[in-house]
Amino acid sequence: MRIVGACGGRGTCGTCVVHIVEGEVEHRQGTEHRDLADTPAGHKRWVQACLVSARSDCTVEVAPRSLAPVVRAELESGEAEILPLDPAVVSTDLALPEATLTDNLSDADRLARALGARIDLDLAAARQLPGALRAGRWSLRAHVRSDWRGQELIGSADVGRPTLGLAVDLGTTNAAAFLIDLESGVRLASLGIENPQVAWGADLISRINAAVKSEAAALELQAAAIAAINALAHDLCHAVGAAVNDIVDVAVCGNTAMHHLLLGLPVAQLGRAPFVAAAARGMDLKARDLGLTTCPGAYVHVVPNVGGFVGGDHVTALLATEERWAGSGTHLVMDIGTNTEISLIHRGEFLTASAPSGPALEGGHISCGMRAAEGAIERVRLGADGRIAIEVIGGKEAIGLCGSGVLDAVATLHRAGIMDDRGRLAAGHADVAEIAGKRVAVLAPGVHFTQDDIRSVQLAKAAIRTAVDMLLVLAGLEESDIERFIIAGAFGAYIDVDSGVATGLFPDLPRQRFFQVGNAAGVGVRRMLASKQARARAEMLAQGCRYIELSTMAEFQKCFLQRIGFPANTRKRTPA
Amino acid sequence: MRIVGACGGRGTCGTCVVHIVEGEVEHRQGTEHRDLADTPAGHKRWVQACLVSARSDCTVEVAPRSLAPVVRAELESGEAEILPLDPAVVSTDLALPEATLTDNLSDADRLARALGARIDLDLAAARQLPGALRAGRWSLRAHVRSDWRGQELIGSADVGRPTLGLAVDLGTTNAAAFLIDLESGVRLASLGIENPQVAWGADLISRINAAVKSEAAALELQAAAIAAINALAHDLCHAVGAAVNDIVDVAVCGNTAMHHLLLGLPVAQLGRAPFVAAAARGMDLKARDLGLTTCPGAYVHVVPNVGGFVGGDHVTALLATEERWAGSGTHLVMDIGTNTEISLIHRGEFLTASAPSGPALEGGHISCGMRAAEGAIERVRLGADGRIAIEVIGGKEAIGLCGSGVLDAVATLHRAGIMDDRGRLAAGHADVAEIAGKRVAVLAPGVHFTQDDIRSVQLAKAAIRTAVDMLLVLAGLEESDIERFIIAGAFGAYIDVDSGVATGLFPDLPRQRFFQVGNAAGVGVRRMLASKQARARAEMLAQGCRYIELSTMAEFQKCFLQRIGFPANTRKRTPA
Repeated sequence: MRIVGACGGRGTCGTCVVHIVEGEVEHRQGTEHRDLADTPAGHKRWVQACLVSARSDCTVEVAPRSLAPVVRAELESGEAEILPLDPAVVSTDLALPEATLTDNLSDADRLARALGARIDLDLAAARQLPGALRAGRWSLRAHVRSDWRGQELIGSADVGRPTLGLAVDLGTTNAAAFLIDLESGVRLASLGIENPQVAWGADLISRINAAVKSEAAALELQAAAIAAINALAHDLCHAVGAAVNDIVDVAVCGNTAMHHLLLGLPVAQLGRAPFVAAAARGMDLKARDLGLTTCPGAYVHVVPNVGGFVGGDHVTALLATEERWAGSGTHLVMDIGTNTEISLIHRGEFLTASAPSGPALEGGHISCGMRAAEGAIERVRLGADGRIAIEVIGGKEAIGLCGSGVLDAVATLHRAGIMDDRGRLAAGHADVAEIAGKRVAVLAPGVHFTQDDIRSVQLAKAAIRTAVDMLLVLAGLEESDIERFIIAGAFGAYIDVDSGVATGLFPDLPRQRFFQVGNAAGVGVRRMLASKQARARAEMLAQGCRYIELSTMAEFQKCFLQRIGFPANTRKRTPA
Repeated sequence: MRIVGACGGRGTCGTCVVHIVEGEVEHRQGTEHRDLADTPAGHKRWVQACLVSARSDCTVEVAPRSLAPVVRAELESGEAEILPLDPAVVSTDLALPEATLTDNLSDADRLARALGARIDLDLAAARQLPGALRAGRWSLRAHVRSDWRGQELIGSADVGRPTLGLAVDLGTTNAAAFLIDLESGVRLASLGIENPQVAWGADLISRINAAVKSEAAALELQAAAIAAINALAHDLCHAVGAAVNDIVDVAVCGNTAMHHLLLGLPVAQLGRAPFVAAAARGMDLKARDLGLTTCPGAYVHVVPNVGGFVGGDHVTALLATEERWAGSGTHLVMDIGTNTEISLIHRGEFLTASAPSGPALEGGHISCGMRAAEGAIERVRLGADGRIAIEVIGGKEAIGLCGSGVLDAVATLHRAGIMDDRGRLAAGHADVAEIAGKRVAVLAPGVHFTQDDIRSVQLAKAAIRTAVDMLLVLAGLEESDIERFIIAGAFGAYIDVDSGVATGLFPDLPRQRFFQVGNAAGVGVRRMLASKQARARAEMLAQGCRYIELSTMAEFQKCFLQRIGFPANTRKRTPA
């Protein structure tokens, strides 16, 4: 069991809530007043775990919404996936003639002769080879990686072992991994866990700051990411009765900060203008150089980044959605997250930007925010009685609000007139209460939505919409020119598009132009794992994107401020 | 100070002699009788250091011949060497435009743009790049390695730093290293040290056995070789005012066992028939994968082996002597050492074999053997008075016998009739004494040459000559067909060819056919360090050698026994 902690222990996010059942705790100086005993949760003494230290053995109850969940990675359709194969690593079962005094080639050359090719040798694979050959009585399974540079023996195994690949989508919040049979292209298993780097903060900037401040923290952040991937690899292999040694290839995508922290690249220059990446192109590294546990000589293909704040996960999203945007039209691909990446595609050219949307839309840094798990409010509607109506995952009692519910809540509060065009909660409504002198919308008993929560959502949606509009201006286009508005990402799949339009997050386009394609980054990185052609295509896409750093442009601030409020027309259109 | 130890602490070689000045020692059980108090060294209590343990603090005097010397690597002519350049790594000083919000390429792409090339990134070099660029105000020196696969940034440095290469000849007995300026081709410095692996035994088989018996020993043997190379690199760089970080490329040659132990490859299959190498082809490894301290992304080029007992040091010797054997004639290249490698070259074809000659010829496992250092007898002649006459290095009092002296001693004892054709010392000669019931030839006061020493030399020279003769038979040639008999190797440079012929080590060819070319392996590995073409040529040479495993052929034993004695004709030709 792990407790959620979005702010890295700074006491600002309120996600790590526990109830001290038994035992003594001491408050961090100056935080005593922040006990949550007066929350609607009632008589229990709730505290933020990061603000107290135990002074004795304690029994604590973790608030349901503070429990770190095992994440569903299966956000795509449940259909069996078979990937197009053009793998970098091909395995061959071989039976070699035994070495004799007259046929005394080296073990490596004997293998190369049997394969009929000149092959380079990974050092670890070479170390393994003599033992493997003799233990297997001169039969073995050779894992050979090939690219345009040549061929390399990266490992060997007993004849008949599987040949597996691991695709990893290393997100800021969650890490999802997929185990692929590289001989059939079949996805064997999928698994997601929370990115353990959240202990240094839910957002990228917190982690970048931590890494810049202390080299030890940078190494710990790297180690946390590696440990997460190794844990996923282990569990996935275990689930299908394989061993991590059967993993002969790895592909990883992530945003640029995740990429840098994973590779141990410096991030100082990423965190301040002009926000420059240390490296952007796709890289093929020895998995062991990162500490990944795989077949000894396996490589990890690291997906190329576009720029400082548009990473490989956007490239894989573009790759995975190419069927939808290919051709000569005008389309937009957006992946909403803590950082939202956007590509405006017009006549085959890419204008790409990122928006610092923060975690609010996903339910992070929201007073009653929680993950999409049982008890989370996932839909908020205006009931026929003019009161707020909710849908809760699992049909249980509501304990918090997840991302898709957040956007619904804002849209509904506005539609109902509980909140005005500037985002202020009205006094006197039946669903509005006052807690500690501040107005909150009460979504369910104990689950409230505060004025601060609304502000967070306003900043997030304004940042995203500003980015879209500025890209359109740069391209000389209008909103209405967008033929397909492709919403990628696990979170985007659950958004209610009407709520998105109602809040001004999305432009008011005909609804059939919106496509919610789910975790496209995951699809893309799996395709890259399975196919060298897909890797080459991804490199072209990354190179093809013209990355625009919007946040420092003169127009940005003005445009952003204009988009903080809510569109009056959507309020008028609400059912009376 | 280090003490020589040729047998790996088994008490068999007697090279680690010390005098206990003060303190108590305990003998290893059953070795008490082996104190050397009765040696000609006289009244001092000499013991083999490996056979005693200290029971108190001790003061010891190390016998001069047991002191491990710093070895001269400068065995080639003292002339300044300038190598032909075609280096794998080229360094370029660059001044880049500073990154801005509109010119926001990644650091790596900015560098590639300035170089006008697509370059891959070494991970360690990528980690270093952002800091180096900003510390140097967007100027730096880029180390880029190129081969037919492409280009790779392997490191960066301040503008104007040197670009150095390290060539290493990792011998069984000594490790020699050479620091080369890769921009001028000039050899800047050279240094040799004893291979610290001698602690596991002077000969290959002892070390192979140690590595096979215990994985820990294998790792220690590897670590010892790495430590030796790192120490050489450090001292060489220090001597020229450079830093190990300036070393951007490394080339290493050694025999196959040294190669395997250095790379951590299994050696079990190397030590038993059919004596197969794990890997033979040239390899390019990241220096850091071996623990070598260089520029972070530097590679080490490991010279290809020919077979189980003919390693990369023979390939480099062939490469370095190509001027002498090129063309259509019949030539022989021999590198005498603990293991002696021989290639018979006939009409451009190579028949290659090795002979297990052991350390005797080099003064190892010889009762008064020592390195070629002050006090070593390096020449033994028959004086006009029919008595033995010696020449001592440095003109000092003789304290031992080095390699070139060993062969001279045997030749002279035979020529003088002190020793018969079968190698038996005669009784009654003025220079023959009896110690502990065994005859010894007294070369100087306290320096004797025993019957066992003579037997060791006989086995060594018979093994080498047998290999030569069997190769000739296989090629259908006669001794007299050899047009050039090229003796490579540091030791071979000091041999007296007449003594070699007199003892039957060499065939009795006209003396002008012999060429003593010195440490050709060192020359060859330096050429390979400096030139990609030389590496390609070496790979061709290694592939071109037809490796013959002689020791297990039926004729070998018979042929060998015939060559243990001494040629009667040379005795007759001695001056009366």
